[in-house]
Amino acid sequence: MRVAVIGTGLIGTSIALALRAHGSGVWLADEDPAAARLAADLGAGELLPDALTAPADVAVIGVPPAAVAATLAAAQARGLARCYTDVASVKQLPVSQARALGCDMTSYVPGHPLAGREKHGPAAARADLFLGRTWALCPAPETSQAATQTVTALVRECGAVPLHTGAAAHDRWVALVSHAPHLVAAAMAARLETAPQAALDLAGQGLRDVTRIAAGDTALWTQIFSANAVPVAEVLAAVAADLAEAARLLSAQATQDDDLKSLAALLEQGQAGAARIPGKHGGAPREFTAVQVVIPDQPGELARLFAASGAAGVNIEDVRIEHSPGLPVGVAELSVRPAQAETLLDALERGGWPVRR
Amino acid sequence: MRVAVIGTGLIGTSIALALRAHGSGVWLADEDPAAARLAADLGAGELLPDALTAPADVAVIGVPPAAVAATLAAAQARGLARCYTDVASVKQLPVSQARALGCDMTSYVPGHPLAGREKHGPAAARADLFLGRTWALCPAPETSQAATQTVTALVRECGAVPLHTGAAAHDRWVALVSHAPHLVAAAMAARLETAPQAALDLAGQGLRDVTRIAAGDTALWTQIFSANAVPVAEVLAAVAADLAEAARLLSAQATQDDDLKSLAALLEQGQAGAARIPGKHGGAPREFTAVQVVIPDQPGELARLFAASGAAGVNIEDVRIEHSPGLPVGVAELSVRPAQAETLLDALERGGWPVRR
Repeated sequence: MRVAVIGTGLIGTSIALALRAHGSGVWLADEDPAAARLAADLGAGELLPDALTAPADVAVIGVPPAAVAATLAAAQARGLARCYTDVASVKQLPVSQARALGCDMTSYVPGHPLAGREKHGPAAARADLFLGRTWALCPAPETSQAATQTVTALVRECGAVPLHTGAAAHDRWVALVSHAPHLVAAAMAARLETAPQAALDLAGQGLRDVTRIAAGDTALWTQIFSANAVPVAEVLAAVAADLAEAARLLSAQATQDDDLKSLAALLEQGQAGAARIPGKHGGAPREFTAVQVVIPDQPGELARLFAASGAAGVNIEDVRIEHSPGLPVGVAELSVRPAQAETLLDALERGGWPVRR
Repeated sequence: MRVAVIGTGLIGTSIALALRAHGSGVWLADEDPAAARLAADLGAGELLPDALTAPADVAVIGVPPAAVAATLAAAQARGLARCYTDVASVKQLPVSQARALGCDMTSYVPGHPLAGREKHGPAAARADLFLGRTWALCPAPETSQAATQTVTALVRECGAVPLHTGAAAHDRWVALVSHAPHLVAAAMAARLETAPQAALDLAGQGLRDVTRIAAGDTALWTQIFSANAVPVAEVLAAVAADLAEAARLLSAQATQDDDLKSLAALLEQGQAGAARIPGKHGGAPREFTAVQVVIPDQPGELARLFAASGAAGVNIEDVRIEHSPGLPVGVAELSVRPAQAETLLDALERGGWPVRR
């Protein structure tokens, strides 16, 4: 596969790196020639030649939402590729603008990989950025099946899981799971701007996590919010109302059981909501049983543990090791399918491990 | 130093593990005898004897805020220790309740380690939980210098950085950097409770981070909020107002430059605020190198991997498995000390694994 990446920011360069790792040829271009050169130096491909001998199989347009349509039109005008996709976080805006500019819609497969980092630019790119991530594809009614198939194959090459959906549904759902959370993080982080240093001295990991995404690119995010304004506004209004109500209850020094109950209800809703977020990788959350085993912290111990599990025919779906430097033991938490938990516990007990049933 | 830990939850057991690693003797007790036994099995100390030959140097009271004063009174009544501290997230409530119960305030040093996890219970405990973390100590006017010195030494033994402050200031600042962020995360996560599955399929790491702390213990947090109601309410009201204003701008489909500017200003305030949060608190940074290996998702594969690592003399400090349901391969990310990374990569390559250098 020969791919042209137009816009070698974080996402464009990461796609290029992922495709190169699978042997595809990649051409790189960016409005800022230094960004394209940096991407090339990172091993993401070669600079796009001025004159093409043949069109690319796919052109990936990695520019901000409001610039997608014009970039697509220019690329199509020079016959850059057989089909085109973009990676913008909103989909209705580029689609309607592309149509208005008279772009060829049959070869355009609007896309959005659900992956990112709080850093931007080619230097932050990673070939594994999309591994197991969902990648939304929103073919327009005019989009040809052949174009959709080619872009779907590209998504799989990057290690991502393609998800076909409509542009309007896409925009509505990313408002909830991506755009509104960004503004919520920003509004919380904004409270820290003028806080006394004494307060920040007390900050911990929780605050860092809640506010991490507030560090994104301001101009890009302003563009995203205004392109997806109404769905984002609906989510924000609901969050603001819940927080205002919690503030009212607390500032009234509510000590009535009923008042605390409505606060606890919000927390429980929050827990239930957080629990619905799929694990690492899109895909429905799988039900696993966690088996805890105390293990000595030394080379070979985990090997013994996994060998015993494998010998018992048990597939360990995930493992977390909790241990502290300097302590002679740790706790391994093995996630297995519920039906296999007893088998594993028996096997480990026979192997002499202190298991917790 | 001989320390009694009353309440072997996440924080109490982690303190016990940290102190044991420095050679202190630790007695363990919990309302739930199984929790104390699990802590003892993990190497956190021995169960507290019914009859003491001598008091402990310090008793650490690791119970929820509203239970601190009564637990302190009972411990003092039996002469458990020469001085006492607690670990509750609010400080004015336990201090005023202890005073009201007639506790001896000269031996009580109210405390709060700024460390935690979204999991709770002794199995989640870690000896390194406090490494480099701030640990607030809020001596009351009556607290003796000797007691404050002893508890300050205990904090240092745990690897934390003691910060002496008043109880009122403490409560005001944790409202901003810990309690309000928890409710903000919960309010955002609450929006997901009834969201369609199609929306959750699009969720990524940003949403997981923003909402992670919403998974905490509801009863404990309700207690914390009602004990620190007014300062928390002030922060929440300000966040709610910013979000409501952003919702208003967006739902009016604001396209005026001025409107977008005020949205961008909120994002910039958020960036500035997030940038002020200190990093990992200076303390002993554990620098690990991550080695990524692609593995087939079947029984025995991890065993082979760990066996090869053990045979090469490499201790795997942590492992994360990234895999998607339905995909035949996963990526194991092995964390090792930097000096061992090359050895591991060589060993894995010899074993036929596709490694990423």
